[in-house]
Amino acid sequence: MTSSATGITVGVVGGGQLGRMLGEAAAPLGINVVVSDPTPECPASPVVDEQLVGAFDDEATVRALAERVDVLTYEIELADPDALARIGEVTGTPVHPDPATLRSIQDKLVQNELYETAGIPTPAFEPVSGLEELAVAGETLGWPLMLKARTGGYDGRGNLPVESIDEGAEALAALGDRPAVAEAMVPFDRELAVIGCRGVDGIATFPVTETIQRAEILREAVSPARTTDAVIDAAESVARDVLGALDGRGVYGIELFEVDGEILVNEVAPRPHNSGHWTIEGCDVSQFQQHLRAVCGLPLGSTRRRAPTASANLLGDGDPRPARLESLAGALSEPRVALHWYGKAEVRPLRKMGHLTVTGADAAADTEQLLERVRAATAGLRWT
Amino acid sequence: MTSSATGITVGVVGGGQLGRMLGEAAAPLGINVVVSDPTPECPASPVVDEQLVGAFDDEATVRALAERVDVLTYEIELADPDALARIGEVTGTPVHPDPATLRSIQDKLVQNELYETAGIPTPAFEPVSGLEELAVAGETLGWPLMLKARTGGYDGRGNLPVESIDEGAEALAALGDRPAVAEAMVPFDRELAVIGCRGVDGIATFPVTETIQRAEILREAVSPARTTDAVIDAAESVARDVLGALDGRGVYGIELFEVDGEILVNEVAPRPHNSGHWTIEGCDVSQFQQHLRAVCGLPLGSTRRRAPTASANLLGDGDPRPARLESLAGALSEPRVALHWYGKAEVRPLRKMGHLTVTGADAAADTEQLLERVRAATAGLRWT
Repeated sequence: MTSSATGITVGVVGGGQLGRMLGEAAAPLGINVVVSDPTPECPASPVVDEQLVGAFDDEATVRALAERVDVLTYEIELADPDALARIGEVTGTPVHPDPATLRSIQDKLVQNELYETAGIPTPAFEPVSGLEELAVAGETLGWPLMLKARTGGYDGRGNLPVESIDEGAEALAALGDRPAVAEAMVPFDRELAVIGCRGVDGIATFPVTETIQRAEILREAVSPARTTDAVIDAAESVARDVLGALDGRGVYGIELFEVDGEILVNEVAPRPHNSGHWTIEGCDVSQFQQHLRAVCGLPLGSTRRRAPTASANLLGDGDPRPARLESLAGALSEPRVALHWYGKAEVRPLRKMGHLTVTGADAAADTEQLLERVRAATAGLRWT
Repeated sequence: MTSSATGITVGVVGGGQLGRMLGEAAAPLGINVVVSDPTPECPASPVVDEQLVGAFDDEATVRALAERVDVLTYEIELADPDALARIGEVTGTPVHPDPATLRSIQDKLVQNELYETAGIPTPAFEPVSGLEELAVAGETLGWPLMLKARTGGYDGRGNLPVESIDEGAEALAALGDRPAVAEAMVPFDRELAVIGCRGVDGIATFPVTETIQRAEILREAVSPARTTDAVIDAAESVARDVLGALDGRGVYGIELFEVDGEILVNEVAPRPHNSGHWTIEGCDVSQFQQHLRAVCGLPLGSTRRRAPTASANLLGDGDPRPARLESLAGALSEPRVALHWYGKAEVRPLRKMGHLTVTGADAAADTEQLLERVRAATAGLRWT
């Protein structure tokens, strides 16, 4: 391992694209990174100091990681909060964000109750442990509703829209008949997100982002959001309330609904988030650098937006096969188009393989045009 | 090795800070990098796919590197151009920039003659192979003059100001009695630099930079240069002439003197250059990304300056010891101050250990203030 400016080595449970972008942010800062991931040569591995191979919730692996580093964090909600808490105690290695916060967030019912207690608006929700409760929830919340597995979901997996009780049994079965939470379907005007961060020196939020989903998967993000200043202020205010309700240092991806000028919290991820990838080019510091600053006890950086910015995910399609793009020349010949490749060996349908970011030339850049440009650049890329 | 978007693996002879920053630029682009460097765990090693250990001019190492990659480049002038040319021919791996260009540039006399032939203004110069020729050169060029070893110098090493012929023997001995070139000492108003690049699709120059040297070592760089628009235009024009005189794809660091509103070429490095580190934050693409685009045959990126930007080198001092900074909190609490750590294990006097960049908030940012801020941030860092 080479020298580190800070003398700090950060351990990251998870070495997917978020771990990779954390690694990319760490090297210039003189922070060493070791990740643990079940896949040998995981996306993060070429850009970090070392990878331990093991499951996200394998206690021996995570403990070996904790013993190897100065501070432990995670880039995936599938980490085991109980194991993280135990390992933190036994090894003395601080864990950020607080495993208790991860535990609350992992359970969508507990997460919703946390916001309810804190007076933070969310869609109406009801616990659902079986078909009977689902029928009752449907009467209370109205049909259609959104059924979410309480645990184990991320990136829209484990979330299922249900039209009526007739689909109930099938929907519950699709979630493996696990405990679930039903949420009122919100007739939102748009989806927003705020990357928030708690550091040793307080909290900071990145500029409000508009996110565009299709089939529960984030496709594009743009900041500023195409909404009113009042809504942007409200979104930032709710995001600060959410940060106030959560313990522990680190970055949080706070997903919001805008409904009739009001803001509801959809859900929160205790880690850097797809809706904040545009901050790498678009802000004074990126969400990844900010997370490292937070967990290492360094001062938080400026979250100012340098210019309007849009990003689009590069998703896989077709049969699983080695990941290779036909040509990058088209996308890269566009000014201010940046590629972020995740280093995944195999392309699969809807797999997040990378993203493109288009940054505005200056503060007056038009968000519609940025979205058009990033969509066109993405559409121009073809898998071999 | 993980997947690569481009399918391209670049080999870099040299794994110092330039190799490291090339590696940092390559990962998001989906370009794999393998470096060769004599120092195990060289600065680049943690951020690239692989390091081969061997001397820069060790033909077996460089050949093994060439066989391992799709395109070969170098980040150090000490690479052996003859070996590179032979290896390129035998292995079929393209080498960029052209080894013939490296050969011309390595020999300061040949380099000056190249510019003379192309009608590009340089300081007056004379070949010097001994004390007698030095005396004649002094009569022609005037005293003091700048004595430069024809080969083997970089970063100011091998350059020696000589006051009079009385110091001649000592100066020649200090250069190891190697063939040298004497250059007229230029009473420059300031030193400028241009990062230029030749790609498959033409040439591109980055905005003109002002560089501030002390004891032959670059300390700070700022762009725009604090000079007139006419001088900036002239500098860019001379830089384009230099690119026109050099063969081969890749980035060139073109060092210039401004004297009474005229531009003279000081010297050129066939690689990314310290005077262009500010482009990482300051321009649409960095010099490192641009070099990768050029050598991989991808289109060149936009070299537009996003905002006025200054950088300062972080040099070592005191006795050689493990490299560690006392605290980064001061520097990192300043908005738009970025650290780039080179990962060198040991701090040594005047060794380049990293750099700080301060980016202006917008296009109207004041260069004097940026320089002040980057100096203050650098001065606030202490080695443990």
